[in-house]
Amino acid sequence: MYARSALLLATLSLAACSAAETPAPERIPAPAAATATASAAAAAPATASAAAPAPAPVPRDPNVDKLQLAAQVDSHAYDMVRSLVDEVGPRLAGSLGDKAAVAWALRTMKEKGLENVRAEKVMVPHWERGAESGRIVAPYAHTLAIAALGGSIGTPAKGLEGEIVMVESLDAMAAMDEAKVKGKIVFYSAPTTRTKDGSGYGKVAGIRYRGAIAAARKGAIGVLLRSIGTDHDRLPHTGGMVYDKDVPKIPAAAVSVPDAELIARLVGQGKPVRVSFSLGAKLLPDAESANVIGEVKGREKPDEIVLLGAHLDAWDLGQGAIDDGAGCAAVVEAARLVLGLGARPRRTIRVVLFANEENGLRGAVAYAKDHAAELDKHQLALEIDLGAGRVHMTRFLVAEGARPVTERIASLLSPLGIQYDKGPAHGGADLIPLHAAAVPIVDLHQDATKYFDVHHTANDTLDKVTKEDLDQVVGAVATVAWAAADAEETFARVPEELRKR
Amino acid sequence: MYARSALLLATLSLAACSAAETPAPERIPAPAAATATASAAAAAPATASAAAPAPAPVPRDPNVDKLQLAAQVDSHAYDMVRSLVDEVGPRLAGSLGDKAAVAWALRTMKEKGLENVRAEKVMVPHWERGAESGRIVAPYAHTLAIAALGGSIGTPAKGLEGEIVMVESLDAMAAMDEAKVKGKIVFYSAPTTRTKDGSGYGKVAGIRYRGAIAAARKGAIGVLLRSIGTDHDRLPHTGGMVYDKDVPKIPAAAVSVPDAELIARLVGQGKPVRVSFSLGAKLLPDAESANVIGEVKGREKPDEIVLLGAHLDAWDLGQGAIDDGAGCAAVVEAARLVLGLGARPRRTIRVVLFANEENGLRGAVAYAKDHAAELDKHQLALEIDLGAGRVHMTRFLVAEGARPVTERIASLLSPLGIQYDKGPAHGGADLIPLHAAAVPIVDLHQDATKYFDVHHTANDTLDKVTKEDLDQVVGAVATVAWAAADAEETFARVPEELRKR
Ligand SMILES: [Zn+2]
Ligand SMILES: [Zn+2]
Repeated sequence: MYARSALLLATLSLAACSAAETPAPERIPAPAAATATASAAAAAPATASAAAPAPAPVPRDPNVDKLQLAAQVDSHAYDMVRSLVDEVGPRLAGSLGDKAAVAWALRTMKEKGLENVRAEKVMVPHWERGAESGRIVAPYAHTLAIAALGGSIGTPAKGLEGEIVMVESLDAMAAMDEAKVKGKIVFYSAPTTRTKDGSGYGKVAGIRYRGAIAAARKGAIGVLLRSIGTDHDRLPHTGGMVYDKDVPKIPAAAVSVPDAELIARLVGQGKPVRVSFSLGAKLLPDAESANVIGEVKGREKPDEIVLLGAHLDAWDLGQGAIDDGAGCAAVVEAARLVLGLGARPRRTIRVVLFANEENGLRGAVAYAKDHAAELDKHQLALEIDLGAGRVHMTRFLVAEGARPVTERIASLLSPLGIQYDKGPAHGGADLIPLHAAAVPIVDLHQDATKYFDVHHTANDTLDKVTKEDLDQVVGAVATVAWAAADAEETFARVPEELRKR
Repeated sequence: MYARSALLLATLSLAACSAAETPAPERIPAPAAATATASAAAAAPATASAAAPAPAPVPRDPNVDKLQLAAQVDSHAYDMVRSLVDEVGPRLAGSLGDKAAVAWALRTMKEKGLENVRAEKVMVPHWERGAESGRIVAPYAHTLAIAALGGSIGTPAKGLEGEIVMVESLDAMAAMDEAKVKGKIVFYSAPTTRTKDGSGYGKVAGIRYRGAIAAARKGAIGVLLRSIGTDHDRLPHTGGMVYDKDVPKIPAAAVSVPDAELIARLVGQGKPVRVSFSLGAKLLPDAESANVIGEVKGREKPDEIVLLGAHLDAWDLGQGAIDDGAGCAAVVEAARLVLGLGARPRRTIRVVLFANEENGLRGAVAYAKDHAAELDKHQLALEIDLGAGRVHMTRFLVAEGARPVTERIASLLSPLGIQYDKGPAHGGADLIPLHAAAVPIVDLHQDATKYFDVHHTANDTLDKVTKEDLDQVVGAVATVAWAAADAEETFARVPEELRKR
C-alpha cells in the first residue's frame, strides 16, 4: 500500500516542510478488505467473515433513537449543502471562495444554534489555476480536456510541446531508461478501479501525487496523467501533487479519461505522439483562512471533546458538493440534532470544519498546534470526507480497554444498516495530526462506489448528493457523537503499536 | 408532437429557404408508443400489444444466416469508428475535420472493397463556434459550463449581460407578457426525459430549435437553455437552431444540466438572477463538402437501389463516435459483409454517408436533387443515426402490397432479438427528401436509453460505443440490405396518405 505509506510519511514530516515543496494530499482511503481480513483473523477467531456481525443486542439509548429518527425526518443537511454550493461554490484555499466559505460556516453554525462558534486563523497556500489548454499535435490533431494538478507550476506562456513517453506506473517510471525520457512528456496511463471502499483510488493516487518527481528525475519536461477517476467523462480530475526540492519542477496536468484512452490508442499504433499544453498556474503568497469551529457544550465534562470533522475547502473546478460539502453538512447537522434533544451529553461535541485539506493540510496542522494542550482531552475523533454515500461499516482505533464502549456504539449504529468491523480506523486526512497524538479515532465507512466518478472535477455538483443517503450519514454521525460524548467510560490514548499497524 | 410537425414543415420548405435562416434540424425521433398503438389498433385487430410478435416462421435465407454470423465474429465496425474518431474526430460541416472526414470515408470505403466509391460535391454552411464563456453574476458568482447552439450569432465582444426570465416551454414563452421579457435573457428550464425510443428528446428539442425566435419575439436580448440531454454532467449539449427573418436574431447557448439546475434554484429563491455570457460564434461563407457514396452492384437489376444511410458530419464539441460514427461504420460494414458473401443480391446496395446532417441537411437535399431521375428506382432506404445501441424493433413505411416482403424481412431479423412493429417508419433526417419522394423506408429502432446523455457533447467519444451492440446493428443492417436487395418483389411507391399519417 504505497500510497498509504507515502501519505503517512509525508504527513509526519509535514510541519517541518515548506508548503510549496510538500502540500499534504487529501485523504487516500486504505483498502478495507485486506486490513479487515488481517485484523479479523488476528482478533476475532470465532468470526469467519471480514465484516463481523454486530455484537449481541444491548439496551438502546432513547436519545440515540430520537437522533436517528430526527435525522430521517427533520434533517437540514441536504439544504445546508445546497446553501454552501449555491452561495459559495468553489473554495480552494486562499481564494475569494475560501473566504466566502469561512463566512458561510460561521453564519450557518450560528443559525443552527451551535455554541462557541468561531474562526481560528490559519495561513494557507494560495495556488491559482489560470487559463489552461492542451492538444494532440501528431499524428492527428485533437483538443484535450486538461486540468493542471493542484500545486503544479505553469508552463512557459507559449506552452510546452514534446513527444509522449507512456508509462503505466511509478514503478515502471523508475525502471525507465533516462535516454528514452529526456526532453519528453511523460504520460501515465494507469486506470482507476471502481471499488466500494475507495481502495482503487488509493492504488493510483500516488501517481498524481509524486508522478512529476519520478518523471523529472529521468529528465522529462512535463507530465500528463490519465485522470485518477472511475468515470468516462471529458472532465479532468485535479488533485494535489508535490515537488521534491532536489528534482527539477516540471508542469503536471491530468487529462480526462476519454482523452487518456485516445492518447494510449495513438501511442499503441507505434507512431510518435506529440502533445502541446499550456498551464497558467501559479503559486501566490500564503493567504489567510480559518478552521471554523462550533460546539455542543457537555454537561459534566465540558473540557473533554468528541471531535466531528470535515473540510471546508474544495477544488476550484467543481462546487465541492460531495467533496466535502456533504461532510460539512453532516457534522454540523449532527450537532444541531443533539442540541434539539433537550438533553446534553456528558462531554463537549466539537464540530471542526478544517481549512485547506486539499492542498496543504494547514488547517489540520494548525488545529493540532493551537489545541495541543487539550489533545489528551480529545476522547474520539471522526472525519466525514468520502462523499454523500451511505455508511455501511464502522471501525475504531482505540486501546484494547475501549473495546466495550466501541462495541456499544457499533450496536447503536446497527439499525442504520452499519456493520461493525474490528479492523483499525485510519481517520480522514485532517485527523492525521490527531492520530499522531494518540487520539482515538472512529471511521464511518461510506459507500464510495460512485465517488471517484466526480471527485475533484467540475462534476462535483449538488445533483450528486442524494438526500436520503446523506441523512443516513447524519444519523450515523449523530449516533457516534452522542454515544461517545455521553459514555461513562473514558477513552484511553491509542498505544503506539496500534497506531503503526 | 410539436417537434415532429415542426421538423416536417421546416424540411418540406427547405430547398426554398436560405440556409442561414433555416438550417434543418438533426433527426428528432417520433415517440414510438403512441404511433405504434394507433397503428396496431387500426391495422392488426388480432394483436393486442403494440410491438407485435414476429410473423410465423418462414424459411431462412442462408446468405442472411452467413451475414448475421459474420457480423458477430468478423465485424470491422468498431475498428472503423475508432479509426474515424482517432484520425478525424470533430467534423462539423465546412470545418477542416469535415474535409478530413470526406477523405477518410473515400479511403475507408475503398479499403473495404465497396464499388463506385465517389464523393458527390455539396456546398454546406460553415459555422464556427469560437471562444465562449458564461457566468452567473448575481446573486452569487458562478462559472457556467456553456456552449453556443449551432447557428447562433455571436455576442458583442464584451459579452451580453442581463437578468434571467425563466420559462419552462415554448408555450409558456408564447404566453409571457412582453413587458416581463424585454431587455432580459430568457432561460428555458425544461428537463429531458430518459426514454428508450428517444421520444423524451423529441418533446423538448423544439425549444433548442426555435427558442431564440420565441424569446426574441417578446424582446429578449439572449437565450440560455437547459441542455437537451438526460445526463448530469458539466458538459453542455449543442445542436441546431434557427432564426426567423422577421424576428431579431439573438445569441443562444445551452448550459449544462447541473448549471441549469443551479440557475433554476437561484431563480426559485426569488432574488433577481443576472448572467453574463460571451459567444465568439460566426457564420462564414458556404464551404465545399461531399456526400460519400459506395456500392455493392446488383446482379440482376443494378439500377434498382437499396439505400443505407448515415451522416458523416458531427458536432464540434465531441468526437462523433455515437453521432454518427457508429452509423457510418454500421452501413459501410454491412456492405462489406455482403461483398464477402461470394453471392450478389439482385439489386444494388448503395451506402451514402451524408454531409451536413447536423446543421443544414444540405447533403440530403443535394442527394435527392442529384439523383432525382433515379429516386423511383430506390426500393427501400434506411438511416442509422441513433447511436450504437442495439436494434430492438423494426418498422416499415411501404404500400400495403409490400407487407408480405416486409414481414419476411422482419422474420429474418427476429434471431437478432428484433421485434416487428406495424407502426410506420419515419426514417432518419437525411431520408426526409426521399420520404417526400415516396421512397419506401425502413426503421431499425435502436435502444436510445443512454444516447441523450452524451449526444452533441464533448462526451461523444469512443468509450460510449460497445462493440457487441454495434455488431448487432451491423447484423440488422446487413440483413435488411441483403433481403431487400435480393427480394423478388418490387417495392411500390408509398402512397401519399400513408406518408402523411
Ligand atoms: Zn475531501
Ligand atoms: Zn446524428
